[in-house]
Amino acid sequence: MLKVFPIFFLFLQFTQLLQADPEATNMSLKMVRVLVYGGRGALGNAIVEHFKEKNCTVVSVDLAGNDHADDNIALDLKQDWAQQEAAVLSKIDGTFDGIFCVAGGWAGGNAASDEMVKNADLMWKQSVWSSAIAARIAAKHLKEGGFLQLTGAAPALDGTPGMIGYGMAKAAVQQLTKSLAASGGGLPKNSSVVALLPVTLDTPMNRKWMPDADFGTWTPLSWIAEHLYDWTTSETNRPASGTLLKITTSGGVTNTENH
Amino acid sequence: MLKVFPIFFLFLQFTQLLQADPEATNMSLKMVRVLVYGGRGALGNAIVEHFKEKNCTVVSVDLAGNDHADDNIALDLKQDWAQQEAAVLSKIDGTFDGIFCVAGGWAGGNAASDEMVKNADLMWKQSVWSSAIAARIAAKHLKEGGFLQLTGAAPALDGTPGMIGYGMAKAAVQQLTKSLAASGGGLPKNSSVVALLPVTLDTPMNRKWMPDADFGTWTPLSWIAEHLYDWTTSETNRPASGTLLKITTSGGVTNTENH
Repeated sequence: MLKVFPIFFLFLQFTQLLQADPEATNMSLKMVRVLVYGGRGALGNAIVEHFKEKNCTVVSVDLAGNDHADDNIALDLKQDWAQQEAAVLSKIDGTFDGIFCVAGGWAGGNAASDEMVKNADLMWKQSVWSSAIAARIAAKHLKEGGFLQLTGAAPALDGTPGMIGYGMAKAAVQQLTKSLAASGGGLPKNSSVVALLPVTLDTPMNRKWMPDADFGTWTPLSWIAEHLYDWTTSETNRPASGTLLKITTSGGVTNTENH
Repeated sequence: MLKVFPIFFLFLQFTQLLQADPEATNMSLKMVRVLVYGGRGALGNAIVEHFKEKNCTVVSVDLAGNDHADDNIALDLKQDWAQQEAAVLSKIDGTFDGIFCVAGGWAGGNAASDEMVKNADLMWKQSVWSSAIAARIAAKHLKEGGFLQLTGAAPALDGTPGMIGYGMAKAAVQQLTKSLAASGGGLPKNSSVVALLPVTLDTPMNRKWMPDADFGTWTPLSWIAEHLYDWTTSETNRPASGTLLKITTSGGVTNTENH
């Protein structure tokens, strides 16, 4: 036994080394290819850059191009939902290991606000149109065993009286996640879909608009980008398909809670 | 004590008689006025007719007019969400005791279906546009202590893989109900909002398309209409504001479950 131990230990170390650097093992055999819907936003850009650092091929879908991406697909705001879907699908070929939809925005307004419907319309287009089109791309171009990520919002697990349109759109995305994960949802075999439900992300725009907030309670973009890479390249590390993953950060430490 | 009993008993009977016929008491003092959004559909028409039988004033909002209604507001399908909101609000004056949104429809499609986005767009317009505009009408024209009803769907409490657009729209309406019921949602003081979540309603159209179904498991339109009248005319009988009221029918008997 005394002789076996060191050899086993060495083997374990070697295995861990391989796991710590996926590019050195199975990932060197096939190029990881991902699509980022909303690749020009703050979070989208962080994801594009992280996957490029990991030598992946990245397609960005957004209103404007992302110079770090290998390919860009431009959205046309004048098109309606079905036209936008058709235009995007017509420009995509091949398969993806991961598809991430991080398009979205924020606008407030309760039922007494004259802005409510206008803002609800904007939120629906930014979050629900993008998520539904990402789901359609996934149905057609995600690999078997691939990973689809959508973006919900932790507050939309309950009522959001001061931001009614935002809450409705995020609730729809969250229910879409449950539909896609269920049997018969239309995604490729063994694929997973997870919605991330952050509270506040640490973006330049949020720092600009909320300069006095405690940034230690905001989730770093790098946390999201690194976890998306992890979940895309390892099926075993992923949250269960259909998970609404509430993400909270406190004192700079980020934790998750499954819903 | 022997002499007091019969008098008390008589008084009790008299009180019960009054309660059983609200028109004979407080309802005769003020005319009950309600608005039915989707008043030309099967459920909408049942509601319009029931409230007219109870001598209420009824305003119907729909694509076409309902001859039983006192007033009709015609929707214009060519208008976008905000235009439709502005047009409807411009045609409404006075206050309402109850506002009921029973507009909606059904269309299927999972993520693999080429119809998914087209159908999701239709479901969104039929259910979410109408519910949001009904919420805006309520914010401006519902009486203090008034009753707003929206229409969700029991299956949308979870994933709906075979009817993705329908599920997203209904999930949005259900989250809207929670937002409106919360403090700061913008509805008038002491008003209530409840979403009804039926499984299948016993409508002529459903009988036509599902002729072999067990109609004893379908909820009668009269059950909805009678309960809406009850909840509008009595604040104490209502489900708590924010309730998602799942409605199931079995063997012709209808039961509810709060969510």
